[in-house]
Amino acid sequence: MNKADTARDRQERRHLSTDQRRRDIVATAADLFDRNGYVNTSMQDIARAAGIAKPTLYHYFTSKDEILCRIHEEFIDQLLSRHENRLAARLRPDQLVLEVMADILELMETHRGHVRVFFENHRELPEREQAEIRLKRDRYQTMVEETFAAGTAEGLFRDVDPRTAALALFGMCNWAYQWYRKDGTMRTRDLAYVFWDYLVHGVGAGRP
Amino acid sequence: MNKADTARDRQERRHLSTDQRRRDIVATAADLFDRNGYVNTSMQDIARAAGIAKPTLYHYFTSKDEILCRIHEEFIDQLLSRHENRLAARLRPDQLVLEVMADILELMETHRGHVRVFFENHRELPEREQAEIRLKRDRYQTMVEETFAAGTAEGLFRDVDPRTAALALFGMCNWAYQWYRKDGTMRTRDLAYVFWDYLVHGVGAGRP
Repeated sequence: MNKADTARDRQERRHLSTDQRRRDIVATAADLFDRNGYVNTSMQDIARAAGIAKPTLYHYFTSKDEILCRIHEEFIDQLLSRHENRLAARLRPDQLVLEVMADILELMETHRGHVRVFFENHRELPEREQAEIRLKRDRYQTMVEETFAAGTAEGLFRDVDPRTAALALFGMCNWAYQWYRKDGTMRTRDLAYVFWDYLVHGVGAGRP
Repeated sequence: MNKADTARDRQERRHLSTDQRRRDIVATAADLFDRNGYVNTSMQDIARAAGIAKPTLYHYFTSKDEILCRIHEEFIDQLLSRHENRLAARLRPDQLVLEVMADILELMETHRGHVRVFFENHRELPEREQAEIRLKRDRYQTMVEETFAAGTAEGLFRDVDPRTAALALFGMCNWAYQWYRKDGTMRTRDLAYVFWDYLVHGVGAGRP
Protein backbone atom coordinates (compact mmCIF):
# COMPACT_ATOMS: atom_id res chain seq x y z
CA MET A 1 0.00 0.00 0.00
CA ASN A 2 1.59 3.29 -1.01
CA LYS A 3 1.34 6.62 0.70
CA ALA A 4 -1.33 7.99 -1.64
CA ASP A 5 -3.62 5.05 -0.86
CA THR A 6 -3.22 5.50 2.83
CA ALA A 7 -4.17 9.16 2.58
CA ARG A 8 -7.26 8.26 0.55
CA ASP A 9 -8.15 5.55 3.02
CA ARG A 10 -7.93 8.01 5.86
CA GLN A 11 -10.05 10.47 3.93
CA GLU A 12 -12.61 7.76 3.24
CA ARG A 13 -12.77 6.76 6.89
CA ARG A 14 -13.29 10.38 7.88
CA HIS A 15 -15.97 10.70 5.21
CA LEU A 16 -17.73 7.53 6.35
CA SER A 17 -17.72 8.66 9.91
CA THR A 18 -19.31 12.03 9.03
CA ASP A 19 -21.97 10.12 7.15
CA GLN A 20 -22.53 7.82 10.11
CA ARG A 21 -22.67 10.82 12.41
CA ARG A 22 -25.34 12.43 10.22
CA ARG A 23 -27.36 9.21 10.15
CA ASP A 24 -27.20 8.97 13.95
CA ILE A 25 -28.39 12.57 14.35
CA VAL A 26 -31.24 11.92 11.90
CA ALA A 27 -32.28 8.81 13.85
CA THR A 28 -32.19 10.74 17.14
CA ALA A 29 -34.24 13.57 15.64
CA ALA A 30 -36.77 11.13 14.15
CA ASP A 31 -37.33 9.62 17.60
CA LEU A 32 -37.85 13.08 19.12
CA PHE A 33 -40.26 14.15 16.36
CA ASP A 34 -42.15 10.87 16.85
CA ARG A 35 -42.42 11.35 20.63
CA ASN A 36 -42.93 15.10 20.93
CA GLY A 37 -44.02 16.26 17.47
CA TYR A 38 -41.98 18.06 14.80
CA VAL A 39 -43.21 21.55 15.68
CA ASN A 40 -42.49 21.08 19.40
CA THR A 41 -38.89 19.91 18.88
CA SER A 42 -36.06 22.46 18.61
CA MET A 43 -32.51 22.15 17.26
CA GLN A 44 -31.44 22.59 20.90
CA ASP A 45 -33.51 19.49 21.85
CA ILE A 46 -31.93 17.49 19.03
CA ALA A 47 -28.40 18.55 20.02
CA ARG A 48 -29.05 17.62 23.66
CA ALA A 49 -30.51 14.21 22.74
CA ALA A 50 -27.60 13.52 20.38
CA GLY A 51 -25.12 14.48 23.10
CA ILE A 52 -23.47 17.23 21.06
CA ALA A 53 -23.26 21.01 21.31
CA LYS A 54 -25.69 23.07 19.25
CA PRO A 55 -22.93 24.59 17.05
CA THR A 56 -21.72 21.05 16.32
CA LEU A 57 -25.23 20.10 15.24
CA TYR A 58 -25.26 23.08 12.86
CA HIS A 59 -22.01 21.79 11.43
CA TYR A 60 -23.93 18.72 10.21
CA PHE A 61 -27.31 20.27 9.37
CA THR A 62 -28.12 23.88 8.57
CA SER A 63 -31.72 23.64 9.78
CA LYS A 64 -34.46 21.45 11.27
CA ASP A 65 -36.03 21.42 7.78
CA GLU A 66 -32.91 19.75 6.40
CA ILE A 67 -33.17 16.98 9.00
CA LEU A 68 -36.86 16.54 8.18
CA CYS A 69 -36.01 16.18 4.48
CA ARG A 70 -33.33 13.64 5.28
CA ILE A 71 -35.81 11.53 7.31
CA HIS A 72 -38.27 11.51 4.42
CA GLU A 73 -35.53 10.60 1.95
CA GLU A 74 -34.05 7.80 4.03
CA PHE A 75 -37.48 6.22 4.45
CA ILE A 76 -38.67 6.27 0.86
CA ASP A 77 -35.18 5.47 -0.52
CA GLN A 78 -35.11 2.32 1.63
CA LEU A 79 -38.44 1.16 0.20
CA LEU A 80 -37.46 2.00 -3.37
CA SER A 81 -34.03 0.37 -3.27
CA ARG A 82 -35.28 -2.83 -1.62
CA HIS A 83 -37.94 -3.23 -4.28
CA GLU A 84 -35.69 -2.31 -7.20
CA ASN A 85 -32.87 -4.57 -6.00
CA ARG A 86 -35.04 -7.68 -6.16
CA LEU A 87 -36.76 -6.97 -9.47
CA ALA A 88 -33.91 -8.80 -11.26
CA ALA A 89 -34.61 -11.96 -9.22
CA ARG A 90 -37.80 -12.72 -11.16
CA LEU A 91 -40.03 -13.44 -8.16
CA ARG A 92 -43.69 -13.96 -9.08
CA PRO A 93 -45.97 -10.91 -8.59
CA ASP A 94 -47.68 -12.54 -5.59
CA GLN A 95 -44.26 -13.08 -4.02
CA LEU A 96 -43.32 -9.45 -4.72
CA VAL A 97 -46.51 -8.35 -2.97
CA LEU A 98 -45.44 -10.25 0.12
CA GLU A 99 -41.97 -8.69 0.03
CA VAL A 100 -43.41 -5.18 -0.27
CA MET A 101 -45.65 -5.80 2.75
CA ALA A 102 -42.71 -7.19 4.74
CA ASP A 103 -40.52 -4.19 3.81
CA ILE A 104 -43.03 -1.66 5.09
CA LEU A 105 -43.77 -3.58 8.29
CA GLU A 106 -40.07 -4.13 8.97
CA LEU A 107 -39.42 -0.38 8.78
CA MET A 108 -42.04 0.07 11.55
CA GLU A 109 -39.58 -1.82 13.71
CA THR A 110 -36.22 -0.51 12.50
CA HIS A 111 -37.24 3.07 11.61
CA ARG A 112 -40.19 3.74 13.92
CA GLY A 113 -39.55 7.50 14.21
CA HIS A 114 -39.02 7.86 10.46
CA VAL A 115 -42.38 6.24 9.75
CA ARG A 116 -44.58 8.62 11.74
CA VAL A 117 -42.65 11.62 10.44
CA PHE A 118 -43.00 10.39 6.85
CA PHE A 119 -46.75 9.93 7.20
CA GLU A 120 -47.62 12.94 9.36
CA ASN A 121 -45.10 15.67 8.55
CA HIS A 122 -45.06 15.69 4.78
CA ARG A 123 -46.73 19.10 4.78
CA GLU A 124 -43.95 20.60 6.91
CA LEU A 125 -41.35 19.94 4.18
CA PRO A 126 -40.18 22.94 2.14
CA GLU A 127 -42.06 23.11 -1.16
CA ARG A 128 -39.29 21.85 -3.42
CA GLU A 129 -38.47 18.88 -1.19
CA GLN A 130 -42.18 18.13 -0.80
CA ALA A 131 -42.39 17.77 -4.57
CA GLU A 132 -39.25 15.59 -4.73
CA ILE A 133 -40.49 13.23 -2.04
CA ARG A 134 -43.94 13.10 -3.64
CA LEU A 135 -42.32 12.01 -6.93
CA LYS A 136 -40.48 9.17 -5.21
CA ARG A 137 -43.58 8.14 -3.26
CA ASP A 138 -45.61 8.10 -6.48
CA ARG A 139 -42.88 6.07 -8.19
CA TYR A 140 -43.06 3.52 -5.39
CA GLN A 141 -46.86 3.36 -5.57
CA THR A 142 -46.68 2.91 -9.35
CA MET A 143 -44.29 -0.02 -8.95
CA VAL A 144 -46.68 -1.70 -6.51
CA GLU A 145 -49.62 -1.06 -8.86
CA GLU A 146 -47.61 -2.60 -11.71
CA THR A 147 -47.01 -5.66 -9.53
CA PHE A 148 -50.77 -6.14 -9.11
CA ALA A 149 -51.35 -5.58 -12.83
CA ALA A 150 -48.67 -8.16 -13.65
CA GLY A 151 -50.25 -10.61 -11.19
CA THR A 152 -53.60 -10.22 -12.91
CA ALA A 153 -51.98 -10.63 -16.35
CA GLU A 154 -50.33 -13.86 -15.18
CA GLY A 155 -53.59 -15.21 -13.76
CA LEU A 156 -52.37 -15.09 -10.15
CA PHE A 157 -54.75 -12.29 -9.15
CA ARG A 158 -58.34 -11.60 -10.11
CA ASP A 159 -59.03 -8.70 -12.44
CA VAL A 160 -58.67 -6.12 -9.66
CA ASP A 161 -58.08 -2.40 -10.10
CA PRO A 162 -54.29 -2.13 -9.49
CA ARG A 163 -54.56 1.27 -7.78
CA THR A 164 -57.25 0.23 -5.29
CA ALA A 165 -55.39 -3.00 -4.59
CA ALA A 166 -52.18 -1.06 -3.92
CA LEU A 167 -54.06 1.33 -1.62
CA ALA A 168 -55.53 -1.64 0.28
CA LEU A 169 -52.03 -3.05 0.72
CA PHE A 170 -50.59 0.29 1.84
CA GLY A 171 -53.51 0.74 4.23
CA MET A 172 -53.04 -2.60 5.97
CA CYS A 173 -49.27 -2.15 6.30
CA ASN A 174 -48.78 1.60 6.71
CA TRP A 175 -51.50 1.81 9.35
CA ALA A 176 -49.46 -0.48 11.58
CA TYR A 177 -47.43 2.57 12.65
CA GLN A 178 -50.50 3.46 14.74
CA TRP A 179 -50.64 0.21 16.66
CA TYR A 180 -47.54 -1.97 16.13
CA ARG A 181 -45.30 -2.13 19.20
CA LYS A 182 -42.03 -4.05 19.24
CA ASP A 183 -42.72 -6.34 22.18
CA GLY A 184 -41.33 -9.61 20.93
CA THR A 185 -44.67 -11.40 20.49
CA MET A 186 -44.76 -11.14 16.70
CA ARG A 187 -41.99 -10.57 14.17
CA THR A 188 -42.98 -8.05 11.53
CA ARG A 189 -42.34 -10.66 8.83
CA ASP A 190 -44.83 -13.01 10.51
CA LEU A 191 -47.36 -10.18 10.51
CA ALA A 192 -46.63 -9.70 6.79
CA TYR A 193 -47.50 -13.37 6.17
CA VAL A 194 -50.88 -12.93 7.90
CA PHE A 195 -51.79 -9.68 6.10
CA TRP A 196 -50.62 -11.15 2.78
CA ASP A 197 -52.84 -14.19 3.38
CA TYR A 198 -55.85 -11.92 4.10
CA LEU A 199 -55.17 -9.76 1.06
CA VAL A 200 -54.56 -12.60 -1.39
CA HIS A 201 -56.95 -15.29 -0.08
CA GLY A 202 -59.45 -13.20 1.90
CA VAL A 203 -60.85 -13.89 5.37
CA GLY A 204 -64.03 -15.44 3.92
CA ALA A 205 -64.71 -19.16 4.34
CA GLY A 206 -65.05 -19.71 0.61
CA ARG A 207 -65.43 -17.95 -2.72
CA PRO A 208 -69.05 -17.02 -3.51
CA MET B 1 -100.25 26.02 23.85
CA ASN B 2 -99.93 27.80 27.20
CA LYS B 3 -97.43 30.41 28.25
CA ALA B 4 -95.18 27.96 30.11
CA ASP B 5 -94.83 25.79 26.98
CA THR B 6 -93.94 28.74 24.84
CA ALA B 7 -91.24 29.77 27.27
CA ARG B 8 -89.83 26.22 27.28
CA ASP B 9 -89.97 26.08 23.49
CA ARG B 10 -88.07 29.30 23.29
CA GLN B 11 -85.50 27.97 25.74
CA GLU B 12 -85.18 24.77 23.70
CA ARG B 13 -84.69 26.68 20.51
CA ARG B 14 -82.00 28.78 22.15
CA HIS B 15 -80.40 25.62 23.54
CA LEU B 16 -80.48 23.88 20.18
CA SER B 17 -78.98 26.84 18.50
CA THR B 18 -76.14 26.98 21.05
CA ASP B 19 -75.50 23.32 20.36
CA GLN B 20 -75.54 23.91 16.62
CA ARG B 21 -73.22 26.89 17.08
CA ARG B 22 -70.78 24.72 19.02
CA ARG B 23 -70.89 22.02 16.36
CA ASP B 24 -70.19 24.60 13.63
CA ILE B 25 -67.21 25.98 15.55
CA VAL B 26 -65.88 22.45 16.06
CA ALA B 27 -66.21 21.72 12.33
CA THR B 28 -64.42 24.97 11.45
CA ALA B 29 -61.63 24.22 13.93
CA ALA B 30 -61.27 20.65 12.62
CA ASP B 31 -60.76 22.01 9.10
CA LEU B 32 -58.11 24.45 10.33
CA PHE B 33 -56.29 21.77 12.34
CA ASP B 34 -56.40 19.51 9.28
CA ARG B 35 -54.97 22.20 6.98
CA ASN B 36 -52.48 23.96 9.24
CA GLY B 37 -51.85 21.56 12.11
CA TYR B 38 -53.19 21.68 15.68
CA VAL B 39 -50.11 23.34 17.17
CA ASN B 40 -50.02 26.06 14.51
CA THR B 41 -53.68 27.07 14.94
CA SER B 42 -54.65 29.66 17.58
CA MET B 43 -58.03 30.46 19.17
CA GLN B 44 -57.75 33.75 17.24
CA ASP B 45 -57.50 31.79 13.95
CA ILE B 46 -60.56 29.72 14.89
CA ALA B 47 -62.60 32.82 15.83
CA ARG B 48 -61.65 34.52 12.55
CA ALA B 49 -62.53 31.46 10.44
CA ALA B 50 -65.84 31.04 12.31
CA GLY B 51 -66.65 34.72 11.74
CA ILE B 52 -67.01 35.54 15.43
CA ALA B 53 -65.08 37.67 17.91
CA LYS B 54 -62.53 35.95 20.14
CA PRO B 55 -64.51 36.66 23.37
CA THR B 56 -67.58 35.08 21.72
CA LEU B 57 -65.51 31.97 20.93
CA TYR B 58 -64.47 31.77 24.60
CA HIS B 59 -68.17 31.90 25.48
CA TYR B 60 -68.56 28.54 23.72
CA PHE B 61 -65.21 26.91 24.51
CA THR B 62 -62.83 27.68 27.35
CA SER B 63 -59.74 26.45 25.47
CA LYS B 64 -58.33 24.94 22.29
CA ASP B 65 -57.96 21.69 24.25
CA GLU B 66 -61.71 21.60 24.80
CA ILE B 67 -62.32 21.90 21.05
CA LEU B 68 -59.79 19.13 20.40
CA CYS B 69 -61.60 16.86 22.88
CA ARG B 70 -64.92 17.63 21.23
CA ILE B 71 -63.53 16.67 17.79
CA HIS B 72 -62.29 13.34 19.13
CA GLU B 73 -65.60 12.65 20.87
CA GLU B 74 -67.78 13.52 17.89
CA PHE B 75 -65.75 11.21 15.65
CA ILE B 76 -65.65 8.11 17.84
CA ASP B 77 -69.24 8.64 19.08
CA GLN B 78 -70.45 8.62 15.47
CA LEU B 79 -68.74 5.29 14.81
CA LEU B 80 -69.96 3.76 18.07
CA SER B 81 -73.58 4.85 17.73
CA ARG B 82 -73.86 3.78 14.09
CA HIS B 83 -72.60 0.32 14.96
CA GLU B 84 -74.64 -0.05 18.14
CA ASN B 85 -77.83 1.18 16.46
CA ARG B 86 -77.78 -1.59 13.89
CA LEU B 87 -76.83 -4.46 16.20
CA ALA B 88 -80.55 -5.05 16.87
CA ALA B 89 -81.19 -5.54 13.14
CA ARG B 90 -79.49 -8.95 13.13
CA LEU B 91 -77.34 -8.47 10.04
CA ARG B 92 -74.89 -11.28 9.40
CA PRO B 93 -71.29 -10.70 10.60
CA ASP B 94 -70.04 -10.33 7.02
CA GLN B 95 -72.70 -7.67 6.42
CA LEU B 96 -71.67 -5.90 9.63
CA VAL B 97 -68.07 -5.86 8.41
CA LEU B 98 -69.20 -4.07 5.25
CA GLU B 99 -71.18 -1.51 7.26
CA VAL B 100 -68.21 -0.79 9.54
CA MET B 101 -65.99 -0.21 6.49
CA ALA B 102 -68.63 2.06 4.91
CA ASP B 103 -69.01 4.06 8.16
CA ILE B 104 -65.31 4.83 8.41
CA LEU B 105 -64.96 5.70 4.73
CA GLU B 106 -68.06 7.88 4.80
CA LEU B 107 -66.63 9.92 7.68
CA MET B 108 -63.61 10.65 5.44
CA GLU B 109 -66.05 12.55 3.29
CA THR B 110 -68.36 14.15 5.87
CA HIS B 111 -65.83 14.72 8.69
CA ARG B 112 -62.53 15.07 6.85
CA GLY B 113 -60.95 17.43 9.40
CA HIS B 114 -62.13 15.30 12.32
CA VAL B 115 -60.46 12.23 10.86
CA ARG B 116 -56.91 13.58 10.59
CA VAL B 117 -57.18 15.17 14.04
CA PHE B 118 -58.47 11.92 15.53
CA PHE B 119 -55.60 9.93 14.04
CA GLU B 120 -52.74 12.42 14.43
CA ASN B 121 -53.51 14.55 17.51
CA HIS B 122 -54.48 11.97 20.09
CA ARG B 123 -51.30 12.74 22.04
CA GLU B 124 -52.21 16.43 22.31
CA LEU B 125 -55.35 15.63 24.35
CA PRO B 126 -55.20 16.32 28.10
CA GLU B 127 -54.41 13.12 30.00
CA ARG B 128 -57.90 12.42 31.36
CA GLU B 129 -59.58 12.95 27.99
CA GLN B 130 -56.89 10.87 26.29
CA ALA B 131 -57.86 7.97 28.56
CA GLU B 132 -61.59 8.49 27.93
CA ILE B 133 -61.17 8.51 24.17
CA ARG B 134 -58.87 5.50 24.32
CA LEU B 135 -61.57 3.58 26.20
CA LYS B 136 -64.15 4.36 23.52
CA ARG B 137 -61.70 3.55 20.72
CA ASP B 138 -60.87 0.22 22.38
CA ARG B 139 -64.59 -0.50 22.81
CA TYR B 140 -65.12 0.10 19.10
CA GLN B 141 -62.19 -2.13 18.17
CA THR B 142 -63.51 -4.87 20.47
CA MET B 143 -66.91 -4.74 18.77
CA VAL B 144 -65.26 -5.16 15.37
CA GLU B 145 -63.13 -8.04 16.67
CA GLU B 146 -66.30 -9.68 18.04
CA THR B 147 -67.87 -9.35 14.61
CA PHE B 148 -64.98 -11.30 13.06
CA ALA B 149 -65.14 -13.90 15.82
CA ALA B 150 -68.90 -14.30 15.27
CA GLY B 151 -68.32 -14.63 11.52
CA THR B 152 -65.84 -17.42 12.12
CA ALA B 153 -68.22 -19.13 14.58
CA GLU B 154 -70.98 -19.01 11.97
CA GLY B 155 -68.71 -20.41 9.26
CA LEU B 156 -68.74 -17.23 7.20
CA PHE B 157 -65.08 -16.46 7.84
CA ARG B 158 -62.06 -18.71 8.07
CA ASP B 159 -60.53 -19.27 11.50
CA VAL B 160 -58.74 -15.90 11.48
CA ASP B 161 -57.34 -14.07 14.49
CA PRO B 162 -60.09 -11.49 15.20
CA ARG B 163 -57.64 -8.80 16.31
CA THR B 164 -55.39 -9.05 13.25
CA ALA B 165 -58.45 -9.14 11.00
CA ALA B 166 -59.85 -6.01 12.69
CA LEU B 167 -56.47 -4.26 12.30
CA ALA B 168 -56.40 -5.18 8.60
CA LEU B 169 -59.89 -3.69 8.19
CA PHE B 170 -58.97 -0.52 10.08
CA GLY B 171 -55.78 -0.22 8.05
CA MET B 172 -57.51 -0.39 4.68
CA CYS B 173 -60.24 2.08 5.69
CA ASN B 174 -58.53 4.45 8.13
CA TRP B 175 -55.57 4.90 5.81
CA ALA B 176 -57.89 6.43 3.22
CA TYR B 177 -57.62 9.74 5.11
CA GLN B 178 -54.17 9.97 3.54
CA TRP B 179 -55.31 9.64 -0.04
CA TYR B 180 -59.11 9.88 -0.43
CA ARG B 181 -60.23 13.11 -2.04
CA LYS B 182 -63.88 13.94 -2.58
CA ASP B 183 -63.84 14.49 -6.33
CA GLY B 184 -67.00 12.77 -7.41
CA THR B 185 -65.36 9.84 -9.18
CA MET B 186 -66.10 7.30 -6.46
CA ARG B 187 -68.66 7.32 -3.65
CA THR B 188 -67.18 6.19 -0.36
CA ARG B 189 -69.76 3.39 -0.18
CA ASP B 190 -68.58 2.07 -3.56
CA LEU B 191 -65.04 2.10 -2.22
CA ALA B 192 -66.28 0.16 0.82
CA TYR B 193 -67.70 -2.54 -1.52
CA VAL B 194 -64.31 -2.93 -3.22
CA PHE B 195 -62.28 -3.08 0.01
CA TRP B 196 -64.83 -5.46 1.55
CA ASP B 197 -64.52 -7.70 -1.50
CA TYR B 198 -60.70 -7.73 -1.17
CA LEU B 199 -60.84 -8.41 2.56
CA VAL B 200 -63.46 -11.16 2.40
CA HIS B 201 -62.65 -12.82 -0.93
CA GLY B 202 -59.02 -11.79 -1.46
CA VAL B 203 -57.41 -10.50 -4.65
CA GLY B 204 -56.05 -13.94 -5.51
CA ALA B 205 -57.36 -15.83 -8.52
CA GLY B 206 -58.33 -18.86 -6.45
CA ARG B 207 -57.84 -20.53 -3.08
CA PRO B 208 -54.63 -22.57 -2.83
